[in-house]
Amino acid sequence: MKSRSSAEAKPSTRRQFLAAGSLAVGGAAALVASGEALAAESPPGSENLPPNVPEWMKAPGADVGSEPYGQPSKFEKGVVRNMRKDAKQYTSFWSGAPLEDLEGTITPNGLFYERHHGGIPEIDPAQHRLMVHGLVETPMVFTMEDIRRFPAESRTHFIECAGNPPFTLIYADKASSLVGLVSCAEWVGVPLKTVLEQVGVKPGAKWIVAEGADAAALTRSIPIEKCLDDAMLVYGQNGEALRPAQGYPLRVLLPGFEGNMNVKWLRRLHVTAEPAYSREETSKYTDSMPDGTARKFTFVMECKSIITRPSGTQKINQGFNEISGLAWTGRGKIAKVDVSTDGGKSWKAAKLQEPVLTRALTRFRLPWTWDGTPTAIISRATDETGYVQPSFEELKAVRGVNGVYHNNATQPWKIAASGEVSNAHVKA
Amino acid sequence: MKSRSSAEAKPSTRRQFLAAGSLAVGGAAALVASGEALAAESPPGSENLPPNVPEWMKAPGADVGSEPYGQPSKFEKGVVRNMRKDAKQYTSFWSGAPLEDLEGTITPNGLFYERHHGGIPEIDPAQHRLMVHGLVETPMVFTMEDIRRFPAESRTHFIECAGNPPFTLIYADKASSLVGLVSCAEWVGVPLKTVLEQVGVKPGAKWIVAEGADAAALTRSIPIEKCLDDAMLVYGQNGEALRPAQGYPLRVLLPGFEGNMNVKWLRRLHVTAEPAYSREETSKYTDSMPDGTARKFTFVMECKSIITRPSGTQKINQGFNEISGLAWTGRGKIAKVDVSTDGGKSWKAAKLQEPVLTRALTRFRLPWTWDGTPTAIISRATDETGYVQPSFEELKAVRGVNGVYHNNATQPWKIAASGEVSNAHVKA
Repeated sequence: MKSRSSAEAKPSTRRQFLAAGSLAVGGAAALVASGEALAAESPPGSENLPPNVPEWMKAPGADVGSEPYGQPSKFEKGVVRNMRKDAKQYTSFWSGAPLEDLEGTITPNGLFYERHHGGIPEIDPAQHRLMVHGLVETPMVFTMEDIRRFPAESRTHFIECAGNPPFTLIYADKASSLVGLVSCAEWVGVPLKTVLEQVGVKPGAKWIVAEGADAAALTRSIPIEKCLDDAMLVYGQNGEALRPAQGYPLRVLLPGFEGNMNVKWLRRLHVTAEPAYSREETSKYTDSMPDGTARKFTFVMECKSIITRPSGTQKINQGFNEISGLAWTGRGKIAKVDVSTDGGKSWKAAKLQEPVLTRALTRFRLPWTWDGTPTAIISRATDETGYVQPSFEELKAVRGVNGVYHNNATQPWKIAASGEVSNAHVKA
Repeated sequence: MKSRSSAEAKPSTRRQFLAAGSLAVGGAAALVASGEALAAESPPGSENLPPNVPEWMKAPGADVGSEPYGQPSKFEKGVVRNMRKDAKQYTSFWSGAPLEDLEGTITPNGLFYERHHGGIPEIDPAQHRLMVHGLVETPMVFTMEDIRRFPAESRTHFIECAGNPPFTLIYADKASSLVGLVSCAEWVGVPLKTVLEQVGVKPGAKWIVAEGADAAALTRSIPIEKCLDDAMLVYGQNGEALRPAQGYPLRVLLPGFEGNMNVKWLRRLHVTAEPAYSREETSKYTDSMPDGTARKFTFVMECKSIITRPSGTQKINQGFNEISGLAWTGRGKIAKVDVSTDGGKSWKAAKLQEPVLTRALTRFRLPWTWDGTPTAIISRATDETGYVQPSFEELKAVRGVNGVYHNNATQPWKIAASGEVSNAHVKA
């Protein structure tokens, strides 16, 4: 699978490149004066220029409506979720959004990252029920139609897996293999607070235990404060219904909290005084510390960023290259992304694409002219709390090397003299 | 095809509804106390409640990666583009986004509205070229790789067809048949200004004639001022590459301008002193005025809104119903959406979902408790210039009845005693 963005450096013998400068992006063939000059130079593709007519203009294209639900171009068939092919099973596994091929900040639903613990259930929404019980005045059962009658809200937020990547898997070759377990969407649903006001939360309620209707009955405990703050029960994602892989027909959305707490296929909210200490919050998703203890309940995904273009497995040309990437923080908004093009010696502030939204992917971009010298490029994000994304060495100094989850370290990319980009964690 | 949102009023005999109130949304079955009580009442779906296990929890679901590019649930198969089935041909035709089934403000790429004049070409991006010539210092040819090397920007904007709906087609039954030819996406590409600075625009240049690489060679003239303002050449849409139906691999984006000027499959920009007076700006897309003249070059799509839920072909229950819809304006931001629930006698300001972005779809919502009395509901948007969306009668008074395009009238929906919602333009 060769992705679109794995641009190869092309020979320039037949092409007239522009001089370097703020807008000299190179690569564009200059027509000298006329169609004749064009014919004399005959750059590749000139047969498709006016007044010539490319093949695809010579007959009508596909009918309107030939795809009632549209699909990507067949030329984009390499742009799919990124997944290891050597797993022993795929029931409890993951696939990453192909970050190096994505644009902007929205992750298309078809490419949203996946992490499932019991496969993807096929749920009939007409049969699905949500039960809310425990420390409540009126235990209630909601149909999807009930949920949809509540006043709705839409909010754009990222979701990120706690193991993105695990401490032990920082040697992968490309961005999507390293931190592809993060995605961003416009979510639509009902604030969880509204549903809790409907059932009436009793004094003493401190946690809500959410259970999914998958074969793993995935169960996580959520502090009541988060449930009454910005938590939502969502049924819409990027304009349409949730996809089965994202919890269709209903999931919990906990903006900024680790992915697996955003319970998919939600069937039960149990209001309790104590957490459930479920499998996914005890044996998994805890942080093994240097002193041998395990830190439980690390909910918030800290500030993080990665350069997605140029990034590992891509190849760049000398001259102008825009450095582009994504930053996010579970604590609010991204305040700043600094980029180094000299391996960390000096840093420049990248431009943040507006609007910068809270707990959403933020696109940053920095113009860069590469002179052909081998180097390393790194991004480092700062969030509105002032927290600065650490390097992997800084993170290890605090957390040791026993941990798996909550790795928000910076990602350095090495640029070789050939223009080939690779993971700088991998020593040659 | 029965869509998800065509909710039927259900008998309440076996269910305990809540009293009316700010949060009394009705429809939720209250569990009296225990599993036994639940069993005694046995509401539909109770077999799926804890401690019972629904069928889809009894075996692992689909493997991770079984859909490298994910698709909607099979239970959403009715949510597709809306299209008339009685056309003589579908080469030059349209399909609408199913607005009544959509959430939030982003239109998924698979449901983005279509309007093509020569079918959808299948273009190999490696073979595609963009030529920029005419009144420029250096005529140039760009590959897609060249275009992608320019500094990029992302912006969220709507695109709307000029005939949405034509003056003569205001009697359709549902929102997507009336104004489905509007959609909204996060677009990524290069500001057209950057490309024009690269080629050097000569004095005397007043227009840029854009030509598509479809079988219609669709051609439109764009004022140079727009080209140097917020126009873009876009290759990304909602995080991924443009879809073939939206101009893959390259289209012009003219925020706020009528849809067909946003030329798809862009192959040529001809910088000129005069407009081209092409077919699509003379025989079509002009406004026939009451005095028999035709108003040409009506570029900006004026302020507009529609209630999408409840809307035509849906059915509502008494009690709480959230009124929800979309508003947009080619002039900037939506300032206000007023909603009437009494056929236009009185109006209340709806809540606008933040962030309100310029030239983007804006979701509005208003809580409403329906007492069962037949009525009509209408939305009316005001944009930041102070312009107020007209009723169809007000629009006709200015524009007459010879016109086809640029109908931005309000859309009244009639609510019958049965709860059935229908187009109030259609007299019983």
